[in-house]
Amino acid sequence: MKKEAYQQMERYMLSRMEDSAHDREHVYRVLYNALEIAKSETAPDYDVLITACLLHDIGRKEQFANPSLCHAMVGGEKAYKYLTEHGFDRDFSEKVRHCIQTHRFRSGIQPESIEAKILFDADKLDVTGALGIARTLMYKGNVVEPIYTKLPDGSISDGTQDTAPSFFHEYKFKLEKLYDKFYTAAGARLAQERRQIAAAFYESLYREVNAGYTSGREMLRKWMQENASDGRRI
Amino acid sequence: MKKEAYQQMERYMLSRMEDSAHDREHVYRVLYNALEIAKSETAPDYDVLITACLLHDIGRKEQFANPSLCHAMVGGEKAYKYLTEHGFDRDFSEKVRHCIQTHRFRSGIQPESIEAKILFDADKLDVTGALGIARTLMYKGNVVEPIYTKLPDGSISDGTQDTAPSFFHEYKFKLEKLYDKFYTAAGARLAQERRQIAAAFYESLYREVNAGYTSGREMLRKWMQENASDGRRI
Repeated sequence: MKKEAYQQMERYMLSRMEDSAHDREHVYRVLYNALEIAKSETAPDYDVLITACLLHDIGRKEQFANPSLCHAMVGGEKAYKYLTEHGFDRDFSEKVRHCIQTHRFRSGIQPESIEAKILFDADKLDVTGALGIARTLMYKGNVVEPIYTKLPDGSISDGTQDTAPSFFHEYKFKLEKLYDKFYTAAGARLAQERRQIAAAFYESLYREVNAGYTSGREMLRKWMQENASDGRRI
Repeated sequence: MKKEAYQQMERYMLSRMEDSAHDREHVYRVLYNALEIAKSETAPDYDVLITACLLHDIGRKEQFANPSLCHAMVGGEKAYKYLTEHGFDRDFSEKVRHCIQTHRFRSGIQPESIEAKILFDADKLDVTGALGIARTLMYKGNVVEPIYTKLPDGSISDGTQDTAPSFFHEYKFKLEKLYDKFYTAAGARLAQERRQIAAAFYESLYREVNAGYTSGREMLRKWMQENASDGRRI
């Protein structure tokens, strides 16, 4: 790929994500993850891979405006249209579309080509480790959802019993379960390297919160009991 | 303190924070932290301490509406007014006011009483460890500030050289420096117990991001250089 072709697609990507520095930096991280994974694969098509990475989230706006749309399906079609209209041949554009349309867990179609598998893993890597924790917490802050919820008895739910969205719930039902779902050996290895810090962070956070609520509520209860009938001013 | 008095003040606190589950849970965590610290102190006045913890952030709304106001100063006055109007004597109400008005780093007045020192430490504890990291990331997500910023050469700033707000900047200039600023021995000990996970998380996050940008940008540059003048389709 010539530098000019890369820059042209980068400009298109940026124009689709001009309002979100968050999404733009995610795209670069996915691209760099993909290049790292690609080193361990036999002759991946770097032109297809780099293009697919740059354009993989260009359907986000459409999904945001209409949550029934899948950004992978929309983005794949948009990329195909853009590429064929800008001098890229049909075969190349179809390969990129396949990568983009299969990069999402929930899109229903599986990545078949090695480039599609690499994009899938590169995108999932960005939800592992400390980065996955940080991005999830920032998202929760953005949509104003809590770190944890409380059970009916007032104790802290560790995420497994939540009935409303929370960071702990997201960790237990998504982040913790990611690590076995990689297609490439290099993707799986990189994910494993990041696994420990994510688990340690969740464990520490739960311990910090839970310790306080457990002993604090008990101390408060005792204190009020001891002072229930004395002659104190309140 | 009788249960009824506690519940009356809890209702007042909740009425001041009805729109923020985040702030309410912070209040309970501060209260439980304070009770834990108080166990190691000689005869703190639990009535003053519990009341000050419950009401310490009731001036948040005013500061949010007018950032030139200090929520500690406003909250202290509001608490004093509330307490004296609800049958609590002046001496008690003044002690509570002192705690609330000195609980903030930037309020300019120092905590003098043991109850004020405990509240200060209990509040700061909630910015240490995994909780401090999680709360800061959620805040950054809420106000749409990034995890990191890039330096003019395109590399990742570790937080020390940022010219715009970011999580890394907040970590380097605030979170990392908290641990020496405790008044009570128990507060300092509890903070130290939480210090390692916060440092480990920051280090991992920086490493994950920086590794990708460093090697990824170099791989991309080489790839484009190698393909600059060949006969490839793009």
